[in-house]
Amino acid sequence: MDEHTAKAFDAELKEISGKIQAMAHVIEQQIASASEVLASGDMVLAKQVIAADNQVDALQREVEEKAVITIARRQPVAVDLRDVVGALRISNDLERIGDLAENVAKRALISAQDFQAIAGVTLRLQHMSELVLEQLKNVIQAYVAKDTGTAEEVWRADQEIDALNNSLFRELLTYMLENPRNITFCAHMLFCAKNIERMGDHATNIAETVYYIVKGTSLPGERPKADVTSLGTLTKD
Amino acid sequence: MDEHTAKAFDAELKEISGKIQAMAHVIEQQIASASEVLASGDMVLAKQVIAADNQVDALQREVEEKAVITIARRQPVAVDLRDVVGALRISNDLERIGDLAENVAKRALISAQDFQAIAGVTLRLQHMSELVLEQLKNVIQAYVAKDTGTAEEVWRADQEIDALNNSLFRELLTYMLENPRNITFCAHMLFCAKNIERMGDHATNIAETVYYIVKGTSLPGERPKADVTSLGTLTKD
Repeated sequence: MDEHTAKAFDAELKEISGKIQAMAHVIEQQIASASEVLASGDMVLAKQVIAADNQVDALQREVEEKAVITIARRQPVAVDLRDVVGALRISNDLERIGDLAENVAKRALISAQDFQAIAGVTLRLQHMSELVLEQLKNVIQAYVAKDTGTAEEVWRADQEIDALNNSLFRELLTYMLENPRNITFCAHMLFCAKNIERMGDHATNIAETVYYIVKGTSLPGERPKADVTSLGTLTKD
Repeated sequence: MDEHTAKAFDAELKEISGKIQAMAHVIEQQIASASEVLASGDMVLAKQVIAADNQVDALQREVEEKAVITIARRQPVAVDLRDVVGALRISNDLERIGDLAENVAKRALISAQDFQAIAGVTLRLQHMSELVLEQLKNVIQAYVAKDTGTAEEVWRADQEIDALNNSLFRELLTYMLENPRNITFCAHMLFCAKNIERMGDHATNIAETVYYIVKGTSLPGERPKADVTSLGTLTKD
């Protein structure tokens, strides 16, 4: 790239990165609000979370369009190319996180009348949400600062969320066993926990993409994985 | 594009399309095998479904790389550009379908000892799988033939899968109510049904992308949606 092209490329990349940060901002709001709905059953707030999905989708399309134009116009290579491709991947993971937050809000809403039915369940879901929110904020920071150290930390920290999901999964099953009236509520909470756990997985994907953008290789080693709810280590009754 | 560029572009596009078809082929196998594992609890088959995920991921990266090179080299516009961007989106949905099939195989495996515990549940899951498989085959055919009519049919047919998921959701809750010993098994089956329903959603996404590639606009009208399990129309006990 000549100097002019390089400058133009940097400006376009900055615009893409700005849109990704805008997406992340909306989604952080969605996660926080969905968690709030779990505690309060607040209808108005739930509808806001659901409505924000259109905004996220529109931003994702903008990132995609801008990225494609940039690739066609500037024909970037090496780290520059990874930067644009990485942005595409990140916007995709962010969009999925937004969908999951929307789904949590919907489920929280229908379970509204059962709130506090089982002490502590929604509290623990909120705790999971907080951890995910933290992960998301850190990984977006890592993306903006091209900080692979923070990306690696996020990558490792996902285990804690997985572990919480495991223990909540077992706990919810015991509540179902205790009283059949808990079953519908607990089934929805199972999905909420799983959704939040998957948000964490997407944050981990983003951490991998940040590492790829900066280093051009994958993160070394196997992805730490503590979600065993679908891996056969469950107790059976 | 001059004639030489146009020919080179067509060849590259054909290669991308070929990789997408290869991905779809692996994933169709995964869905069929995961469904088989639901019926048989066959460990070896389940492990094959899980192992195929690496192959799918590798193919997705290849589509992505090839698409990016094509955009940079040929600077396509209008329908040509939509073709490449559409391929990126489709490979992404396919990758998610593969993940979901893998998850069904894992859950089927841990529930193996409970098979046939509840007459008909695994049969109905298999029926859902068959419908999804049909949808996937049709939508990939629509992609290859640029056939928006078939894409629209796929788009509409997703409602049937959603409806099956709804009725299975209710049915599973009643089995949980009837006998606490069913709860663990049924919780896994809830996730299996949801996973299969989401595979259908991704096939619907692909139908929308095919329409976008050919027409340059979105499919008219609201997406038909019959999945109400997260929308508050559940019976409460």
